[in-house]
Amino acid sequence: MSDRSARAERLAELIAERELDLLLVTKLVNVRYLTGFGGTNGICVAGTGERLFFTDFRYTQRAREELDGGWELAPADRDLLPAIVAGFRGRVGFDDADLSVRQHAKLAELVAEQDGVELVPAGGLVEIVRRVKDSGELEAMSAAAALADEVYVAIRERGLVGRSEADVAAFAQAELRRRGAEPAFPPIVAAGESGAQPHAEAGEREIGAGELVTIDMGALLDGYNSDCTRTFATGEIPDEQAATYELVRAAQAAALEAVRAGAEGKGIDAVAREMIDAAGHDEHFGHGLGHGVGLEVHESPTLSTQSEDVLVENETVTVEPGVYVEGSHGVRIEDLVVVTADGHRNLSSLPKELEVVA
Amino acid sequence: MSDRSARAERLAELIAERELDLLLVTKLVNVRYLTGFGGTNGICVAGTGERLFFTDFRYTQRAREELDGGWELAPADRDLLPAIVAGFRGRVGFDDADLSVRQHAKLAELVAEQDGVELVPAGGLVEIVRRVKDSGELEAMSAAAALADEVYVAIRERGLVGRSEADVAAFAQAELRRRGAEPAFPPIVAAGESGAQPHAEAGEREIGAGELVTIDMGALLDGYNSDCTRTFATGEIPDEQAATYELVRAAQAAALEAVRAGAEGKGIDAVAREMIDAAGHDEHFGHGLGHGVGLEVHESPTLSTQSEDVLVENETVTVEPGVYVEGSHGVRIEDLVVVTADGHRNLSSLPKELEVVA
Repeated sequence: MSDRSARAERLAELIAERELDLLLVTKLVNVRYLTGFGGTNGICVAGTGERLFFTDFRYTQRAREELDGGWELAPADRDLLPAIVAGFRGRVGFDDADLSVRQHAKLAELVAEQDGVELVPAGGLVEIVRRVKDSGELEAMSAAAALADEVYVAIRERGLVGRSEADVAAFAQAELRRRGAEPAFPPIVAAGESGAQPHAEAGEREIGAGELVTIDMGALLDGYNSDCTRTFATGEIPDEQAATYELVRAAQAAALEAVRAGAEGKGIDAVAREMIDAAGHDEHFGHGLGHGVGLEVHESPTLSTQSEDVLVENETVTVEPGVYVEGSHGVRIEDLVVVTADGHRNLSSLPKELEVVA
Repeated sequence: MSDRSARAERLAELIAERELDLLLVTKLVNVRYLTGFGGTNGICVAGTGERLFFTDFRYTQRAREELDGGWELAPADRDLLPAIVAGFRGRVGFDDADLSVRQHAKLAELVAEQDGVELVPAGGLVEIVRRVKDSGELEAMSAAAALADEVYVAIRERGLVGRSEADVAAFAQAELRRRGAEPAFPPIVAAGESGAQPHAEAGEREIGAGELVTIDMGALLDGYNSDCTRTFATGEIPDEQAATYELVRAAQAAALEAVRAGAEGKGIDAVAREMIDAAGHDEHFGHGLGHGVGLEVHESPTLSTQSEDVLVENETVTVEPGVYVEGSHGVRIEDLVVVTADGHRNLSSLPKELEVVA
């Protein structure tokens, strides 16, 4: 059985658990995950028996070539909904996190003409299936992470001092592309005070000697993303900043140790957060510890104070504590890891001792 | 008065016309258009008097640097909505084309605690303001189009025969980037039979001699997009295909002649469509004639059989008829033009006679 057929079977189980008759899958990344279709107008309808895929004339030839996992191609007009709704029956789940209010209103109007059909908000079901990666997905993510690691090495060899943040970011993008990947997101390069902004845009600011520089970057390869952050020193740094680095390094190591199948996302976050809080930086770690990665850079599960997720084998999560001292400096260290039965497998191979890159 | 202040004033007029007290602007591209803010978590609230901008701690410093047009920075938690809703009064418009069913449900729950506040679907108001470009926007789009034209010249000089579609597309992307732009979208390169798919993905198929090759590409420069299509011949082509080319070329020229302020989107589409229908290709032009371009590649207004738009001076639209003969060949020719009082100004400078590129 192909991986895609296994995905559809797992989804059918969730559909049955929610007491739905059918699920309307509208979000394109979910459609691609389930069916292999890579065009920009396609919707699936899944049930315990059905696997229907709808697209318009522009994409039928492509769909014939790409559909995988037992999906049946059903033709429709460019506006796919009328043809889709005609086959609805019973309780039909829709993706309330994806469908806009306007799209839903249109859908509801079409459904009103069908006897005995009820629309039920059911976002997040395909995302549950997507959490656990199969071997092909793990290979793709491992390759993406290894490629990004190479780019980190190239950045270190080229040096940082005297270059602008934007120049380093552009170099990172070019190196990702030269190796056949795309940037998973615009690389963050944040030096000195800018490092205190977790999502600083790489600017024209020139990187000086004796600063901390945070670089957050990932590769998108064969549809799958990696995500990695390292903070470098560009020479000798003040003791306070070195202490921040060691704190974040220790918190990241401790949180990594806590990752394993069965562990709670909230608990893993707490391991790092309590260390950072205890060091007097409780106001300086204003984001969650980590997030799932896969077809999207941010997906389920979540490691945070709000998380209700319990980790499962072969999920992929980032572990990325940070300390941001406004007006002064910031440090973040991030690895992407695969959850295993008794721990984790790290997809990032870069060192985490503070490295000096001049 | 800055361009951004003028945008907010025009929006305030539309808000008053719709008898709204406030408008909640959630779509990021609209937030950026109105305020200049380029981060990924920001929402505006506009009224006839108010110009409020909300973001969280990660972006406050950036917002202070970027906000333009009289917007007042209001702090909020990472979940911006509670702080925003606290200031609601009366009829509050929201973007029903952007807000998901789930986001709307959350918003409605918060609003339920506010006396006398009513949520009203009001998507598309900022998009109406965005239709008419100011001089800075027209300059940016003109520069983007000129840059893409240079890349077409480079593609022609490099040649097509013996290369794969994917290779030509990769070259186009690299050339766009080498000149400081990003691809507005993944370039389409569709040769021979693939040309019959309007949105064919550039594949590994090798381009042969004596084929038609459609290349559709644009540049994204300073936030603004261009969009252009040309179809080349890679040597002598069958008479039927040459006739298709001449038909599309003539239909495109006639439709361009019909563009002017006051013309109807439906009427301009009809000029090209009637010529194509009359030549027996009524089944082979399965998309609209054109669309607005700006911060997004596809925006209002629309030139199509369904369009209810009437063109206004300084709108920017594509004119792109196509004929797609399944299993055989396809032709599309597309220019991006600025609507003027008595005609149009063409941002594309490439020739439209059939060019042979071996």
